[in-house]
Amino acid sequence: MANSKYEYVKSFEQPDVLLPNTWIVVRIDGRGFHKLSDRYGFIKPNDRRALDLMNAAAVEVMKELPDLCIAYGVSDEYSFVFHPSCQLFERRSAKLVTTIVSTFTAHYIYQWGTYFPSAPLQPPYLPSFDGRAVLYPTTRILRDYMSWRQVDCHINNLYNTTFWTMVQQGGMSNTDAERELQGTVSSDKNEILFKRFGINYNNEDEMFRKGSVVYRQYQLEDPKPESKSKHGDDDEAPVDESKTSKSQQDKLRKLRRKAQVVVDHVDIIKDEFWERRPWILSGKPGKLPEA
Amino acid sequence: MANSKYEYVKSFEQPDVLLPNTWIVVRIDGRGFHKLSDRYGFIKPNDRRALDLMNAAAVEVMKELPDLCIAYGVSDEYSFVFHPSCQLFERRSAKLVTTIVSTFTAHYIYQWGTYFPSAPLQPPYLPSFDGRAVLYPTTRILRDYMSWRQVDCHINNLYNTTFWTMVQQGGMSNTDAERELQGTVSSDKNEILFKRFGINYNNEDEMFRKGSVVYRQYQLEDPKPESKSKHGDDDEAPVDESKTSKSQQDKLRKLRRKAQVVVDHVDIIKDEFWERRPWILSGKPGKLPEA
Amino acid sequence: MANSKYEYVKSFEQPDVLLPNTWIVVRIDGRGFHKLSDRYGFIKPNDRRALDLMNAAAVEVMKELPDLCIAYGVSDEYSFVFHPSCQLFERRSAKLVTTIVSTFTAHYIYQWGTYFPSAPLQPPYLPSFDGRAVLYPTTRILRDYMSWRQVDCHINNLYNTTFWTMVQQGGMSNTDAERELQGTVSSDKNEILFKRFGINYNNEDEMFRKGSVVYRQYQLEDPKPESKSKHGDDDEAPVDESKTSKSQQDKLRKLRRKAQVVVDHVDIIKDEFWERRPWILSGKPGKLPEA
Amino acid sequence: MANSKYEYVKSFEQPDVLLPNTWIVVRIDGRGFHKLSDRYGFIKPNDRRALDLMNAAAVEVMKELPDLCIAYGVSDEYSFVFHPSCQLFERRSAKLVTTIVSTFTAHYIYQWGTYFPSAPLQPPYLPSFDGRAVLYPTTRILRDYMSWRQVDCHINNLYNTTFWTMVQQGGMSNTDAERELQGTVSSDKNEILFKRFGINYNNEDEMFRKGSVVYRQYQLEDPKPESKSKHGDDDEAPVDESKTSKSQQDKLRKLRRKAQVVVDHVDIIKDEFWERRPWILSGKPGKLPEA
Repeated sequence: MANSKYEYVKSFEQPDVLLPNTWIVVRIDGRGFHKLSDRYGFIKPNDRRALDLMNAAAVEVMKELPDLCIAYGVSDEYSFVFHPSCQLFERRSAKLVTTIVSTFTAHYIYQWGTYFPSAPLQPPYLPSFDGRAVLYPTTRILRDYMSWRQVDCHINNLYNTTFWTMVQQGGMSNTDAERELQGTVSSDKNEILFKRFGINYNNEDEMFRKGSVVYRQYQLEDPKPESKSKHGDDDEAPVDESKTSKSQQDKLRKLRRKAQVVVDHVDIIKDEFWERRPWILSGKPGKLPEA
Repeated sequence: MANSKYEYVKSFEQPDVLLPNTWIVVRIDGRGFHKLSDRYGFIKPNDRRALDLMNAAAVEVMKELPDLCIAYGVSDEYSFVFHPSCQLFERRSAKLVTTIVSTFTAHYIYQWGTYFPSAPLQPPYLPSFDGRAVLYPTTRILRDYMSWRQVDCHINNLYNTTFWTMVQQGGMSNTDAERELQGTVSSDKNEILFKRFGINYNNEDEMFRKGSVVYRQYQLEDPKPESKSKHGDDDEAPVDESKTSKSQQDKLRKLRRKAQVVVDHVDIIKDEFWERRPWILSGKPGKLPEA
Repeated sequence: MANSKYEYVKSFEQPDVLLPNTWIVVRIDGRGFHKLSDRYGFIKPNDRRALDLMNAAAVEVMKELPDLCIAYGVSDEYSFVFHPSCQLFERRSAKLVTTIVSTFTAHYIYQWGTYFPSAPLQPPYLPSFDGRAVLYPTTRILRDYMSWRQVDCHINNLYNTTFWTMVQQGGMSNTDAERELQGTVSSDKNEILFKRFGINYNNEDEMFRKGSVVYRQYQLEDPKPESKSKHGDDDEAPVDESKTSKSQQDKLRKLRRKAQVVVDHVDIIKDEFWERRPWILSGKPGKLPEA
Repeated sequence: MANSKYEYVKSFEQPDVLLPNTWIVVRIDGRGFHKLSDRYGFIKPNDRRALDLMNAAAVEVMKELPDLCIAYGVSDEYSFVFHPSCQLFERRSAKLVTTIVSTFTAHYIYQWGTYFPSAPLQPPYLPSFDGRAVLYPTTRILRDYMSWRQVDCHINNLYNTTFWTMVQQGGMSNTDAERELQGTVSSDKNEILFKRFGINYNNEDEMFRKGSVVYRQYQLEDPKPESKSKHGDDDEAPVDESKTSKSQQDKLRKLRRKAQVVVDHVDIIKDEFWERRPWILSGKPGKLPEA
């Protein structure tokens, strides 16, 4: 019994290969996490357990997919970055996105009990994530994307910290706190925190203020002050790499698997982070740290 | 501190809205399930626990997304079908696909222990799934897609059943069994099973032979023999439905939530299945069964 | 000297194959025809020479591409319709659209002098057209698209006829005429024309009121009143046709080339037009008229 | 009479906006020019009239669309390049491609008689062109694209020159010439031309050997030997330009309109061409030549 009669339906599948030599960012977001955080009693404004769980899942995704260069997480979202030279799954968009979303979800669910021992999952209300791929043609724009997320982290966290301090410590109603914060700028919020509650925002936890950066650790390099081309050289590397053979790519993947995946809470807007870790933007593994 | 400096990166997100008034099939597949089934000791050729777990996860996806009409599962794959009138997530492809993949994964991981109590998950080797959306413009083609999957189920299961019987009961090596089966047709395999092992393939479990069909249960209707238009009327319903207001869509969703989601192992190639359950192709909820 | 060093740039071409088994409408529009019609002294509200030239170019496009079923033109726009079974250029969108746009432009420019002998083209101010492809999944929706264009023709032409009559025969300023027409409905405009100027709109030229329909002429068929499926049967024909072999397609093309391409000014909203010319929606050539 | 009943068909138009900040190349190709060149008696291997006509049409396209940076033509194809910062038509792919194809076709048809006074067009056999857009994410890759076309020009022209010399001057049959050339490299062909026919290929017309480069002329600049970043700076300019306001873009367009559009037959593979004309890759108009 052949299946040829119906096989024509395969012709309806349409290709979704992403443009070569561009940065691929897969951003995933928690679905309905506002409700979910209520159901499972997440602490406001930041629940360390929830963030640690996000980071643990992100680390597993990075380990599973050595083609990933870096990831950045804040709140219930995570951005995973593939290098322009990435050829994984022939750069098929749906395959890349769903693999990341599914792997992330699997580890998030599996490790839930470790981070929330006192709040077991209540089916059918399980956490889940959606995702999408976005292309960035140059390193400068990729870095602007990363900066955008970290600035967003800062803006939201300063707001939330101030709001919840006013409510939790200041005894204000949600509505009153919201109203007072309307139209304020950063310095206003810093002042409210400091003057009314003695809180120096800069002493807040770095994970809350800066988000979480996940990458492979090699030996840090000295920044090269003479370098003009701060943001990687879009003109050279990507083209060469896209021509690397399958076997070379496999070799690179093996090298990357040997590196430790670390979680950091640091500034990724300034150049320093990138200059000391040139392997992130170059896509070429660095030197493993000496034991 | 405004975020406007970097916000331009949002303009790189490209729309991925699926063509209106077409059937959307989201098919998900287990990633590396060949290896995984070895690791966790899946029984060959069919592991009832693994299929039950797939079905349990699919049922939860159907409950979570009342816009889904029907789902069909075989082995480590599942196809979920949205009606042409579906407006969920404005028909954004990545959003639809990742929501299904993530929800499915979450329930699969969460319920693993129930179905495999003696084979706990071993991180980092967690099951995961990839997925993609395919559009089918008419009901006839959608039904051909469903038939394609069920014929595939039959072909693969007959092969696998024969192969593993030859190996497990006949004591043949994998290579010898493979060689003997090369070039055989269905009747050859049926004969091997019957003559050598006394197995009547038609007595094998229907879940193995037909796969699993998941849908909302309403009162079955009598097939209308006079009906010419066997496959739903593409010309009427979809257009009307695409114009339904948000409130009407919400009402339909509520009605669908009331129906029980059932798992069936039946022929979906012939007309009868569809004629007795017209709500699947029409997208209009039927009558709830009387209590 | 091989060209392999640079050939990798070919990998940046992305596929743009249109979904199989859907109607393809290529609509082209004159670029900046408002200005152009002033420059070349088009008569308001309708310039018969300009419309005849549009139709002449459309006829040549229909002759050049026998895969086209029908075309509909109004003002400086033209819609060309490919059948769901069309496999021309493997259904590549850019190839289909640019071929139509270029062929249309070529004949429009070439024949300009025939229709505007007293207003020769003045380079660099040459007429040109842009275009795009849109997919319609069912025959009902394709017909709604055609109806949409013809209703638009009616609305615009009634407005323009009334407006220009008020200006040209009534001596009103453009502004005054515009102001008076604001908020009026069809019956108001009909009344203005009739009462003030003695014009019965229904006696205006059919080309102006109904636009131009271009198709291949075969023997008209009697409408079948018993037929339920008025709009073609989406479930049968397209699927079959998409499976037709190359040689069968070539044969169909040859048959279509034999038919005369005609320009008609008739109602295409009601069923009659389509029922008497079933070959348009079925994609199957009819009987050639007897000599 | 409102048109609302049918207006839903507009929702089937799908967006086709091209990724921001990438080079857009629109390549057009003559349709069936092999046959056409026979019909109108094009001289082999190169017909100067036909190439001049292609160039004349390309110059008009460049004048019409000041957003274009450069164009390169060879045989019956032409590549038009938009800068990454281009916002024309909101970067809609079909609009950009069809506008170029139609404008090119219009001028090609209109000027035919000037270049082929003795071979008037014979309808319906009019020349026409198809086209497509391809994205290139970095300046390096855009330059590789341009090099690819010019190398192709060289390879084809050397072959054709040798082939037709063997046939026309050597009296060989097409088949014999083809057979002898099979497997030869450049030096073999150069030798055949020189030894047998006394032809030094390097003395052949530059238009035939190098193709045609069309761009806006400003004052040439001295190459800056110290510059590291030879290929433009992808990281800076594009991002800034994409943020330029509408009015700034209009200003740039006006400046570009003032420049003369020139046709050149020069090497565009080496850096010199680009270094002396930095406005092409920067997208910023240079200094107009002094009168």
